[in-house]
Amino acid sequence: MLDQRILPGEVLYLDFNSAEEVAAAIRDMVIRGAPAIGAAAAYGLAVELRQSDSDDLELLSEKYGKADEVLRASRPTAVNLFWALDRVSNRVNDTTFTTAQELKDFVLAEAHLIAKEDVEICRQIGLNALELIPKQATAVHHCNTGGLATVGYGTALGVIRTAHENGHDISVLVDETRPRLQGARLTAWELKQLGIKHKLIVDGASGFYMKQGQVDFCVVGCDRVAANGDTANKIGTYNLALAAYAHGIPFYVAGPTSTIDLSTASGDDIEIEERTDTEVLLVGEERIAPEGTEVGNPAFDVTAAKYISAIITEKGIVYPPFVENLKALFD
Amino acid sequence: MLDQRILPGEVLYLDFNSAEEVAAAIRDMVIRGAPAIGAAAAYGLAVELRQSDSDDLELLSEKYGKADEVLRASRPTAVNLFWALDRVSNRVNDTTFTTAQELKDFVLAEAHLIAKEDVEICRQIGLNALELIPKQATAVHHCNTGGLATVGYGTALGVIRTAHENGHDISVLVDETRPRLQGARLTAWELKQLGIKHKLIVDGASGFYMKQGQVDFCVVGCDRVAANGDTANKIGTYNLALAAYAHGIPFYVAGPTSTIDLSTASGDDIEIEERTDTEVLLVGEERIAPEGTEVGNPAFDVTAAKYISAIITEKGIVYPPFVENLKALFD
Repeated sequence: MLDQRILPGEVLYLDFNSAEEVAAAIRDMVIRGAPAIGAAAAYGLAVELRQSDSDDLELLSEKYGKADEVLRASRPTAVNLFWALDRVSNRVNDTTFTTAQELKDFVLAEAHLIAKEDVEICRQIGLNALELIPKQATAVHHCNTGGLATVGYGTALGVIRTAHENGHDISVLVDETRPRLQGARLTAWELKQLGIKHKLIVDGASGFYMKQGQVDFCVVGCDRVAANGDTANKIGTYNLALAAYAHGIPFYVAGPTSTIDLSTASGDDIEIEERTDTEVLLVGEERIAPEGTEVGNPAFDVTAAKYISAIITEKGIVYPPFVENLKALFD
Repeated sequence: MLDQRILPGEVLYLDFNSAEEVAAAIRDMVIRGAPAIGAAAAYGLAVELRQSDSDDLELLSEKYGKADEVLRASRPTAVNLFWALDRVSNRVNDTTFTTAQELKDFVLAEAHLIAKEDVEICRQIGLNALELIPKQATAVHHCNTGGLATVGYGTALGVIRTAHENGHDISVLVDETRPRLQGARLTAWELKQLGIKHKLIVDGASGFYMKQGQVDFCVVGCDRVAANGDTANKIGTYNLALAAYAHGIPFYVAGPTSTIDLSTASGDDIEIEERTDTEVLLVGEERIAPEGTEVGNPAFDVTAAKYISAIITEKGIVYPPFVENLKALFD
């Protein structure tokens, strides 16, 4: 995995050889972004099984069960993690294996499939979004949703990238995205490499630019979309959505259908991860508040469906009313 | 001046001996906060005159004129700067001096008066606000508006402090306030010293806490209030106001009447200072974005009067309609 904690200062690839290690990498955010976490979890199962040189299928199945449990406990909010683990488990359960090697090969193949599909899905999300994106436009983007947050290409950033590649004149106001600064560190880095015009702003400045008439739309990714369209995403998304709503600016959510969780009725049912205070108190080595300062650090917030103009998936654009239209996507 | 750029890590007092030096200190934000800037500008005139050992009144008047000009150019948005310089000028013009020493003494006395009045004004703002503040409440506060932003006691933080000193059970969610982190560095430091419960949050998290029903009101300072109630304040204030509005949470602006500028018709007429990109790109020594990243760094935003529940001044609480009620304050 490319260590996303130290980008853009350093480009470092790390190797992981057990489910425990992969779970720790997800928890510590070596890798982040809902779709990327999903694929990483599937590979976590595969590398754990590969570690074993036992030919005992039963022993290996037990190992699989434990790995699944460890990975499931890594982060609570993004549903793609659970989606990927469920997908592999369901296919494993539907298949009869006669040797341990068969099981190993099967799980690795499924992880490869999830990764491969993710890239195609992101490209399709970008293409589906094209009709929403003006020929010339400035977008506000929150967090990182690019190649780094997915297996490749990106969701919300994929929307921007596809528009750019199709000749739209796109500029991006990049929310720096405190506390972990994924916008400043990762999105600015990706946009630079893609040659897309962008300007870094603090999260509190989005309303200022909207009021000045400089923003045409917002596009963000998602960590979990509930059945009613309520969307959990990186902290700060909700404030951005409220600002967009007040200005009548379209607010788009982009993500694969694996992020839509019809078993979660509404945003109230989404568990929000509270992360360590040091994410807020320290920027690199720099301490920003007095010793002993208490911190509130929710990693995500929930944007009510009311504030979302459309949800862009690989299967098409979903408009309100979301309860009916999200359900229809899976029928 | 207490150097506010390096708090809370270091407590360092700096001396300034000319208007040029004081103007630079305001520009570089050694001192910040609209009321504190006003008082500092008045002292800037006084120290400049004190520097001169000439007995020539005409020469000294010329020196005064240049000092006034230099100080006026230091920061464009907070009106208290211009208010304080105008106040001293008007009084100087209304007075007949026979010696240079008389002029020096007069300007210094006027600066002392502005400083002394500011403390009384802040205490009165706090007392006037008491009727608005529930017996038990959690407030979101943006930037720093405490003793550091004023000559003493504070405006919005003075409101919180007065409520606390009058037995209200007050907790504060402290917006860290990017890019310069006045909330994390200064407000958390002041609240700690005052023994008021507080929790530091990133600016993007305020909506999250509002949605959870944890916020009872917001209170912020102001750098300029236009005749129609539109209020310029630290960048991020507007996003906070929009979030409060969406949740039906009262949003209070606290400031001395010297911050109200009836000659500015609306927020559209307020010049917004754009500051250097390094304020966003560097947190201390820590670089947060790739080399060459373009930055948008407006120091302030304007919150439309529509989103403001009341403006708390030393002369009383002003409610909408602001055009009439602000004007009445000066009649």
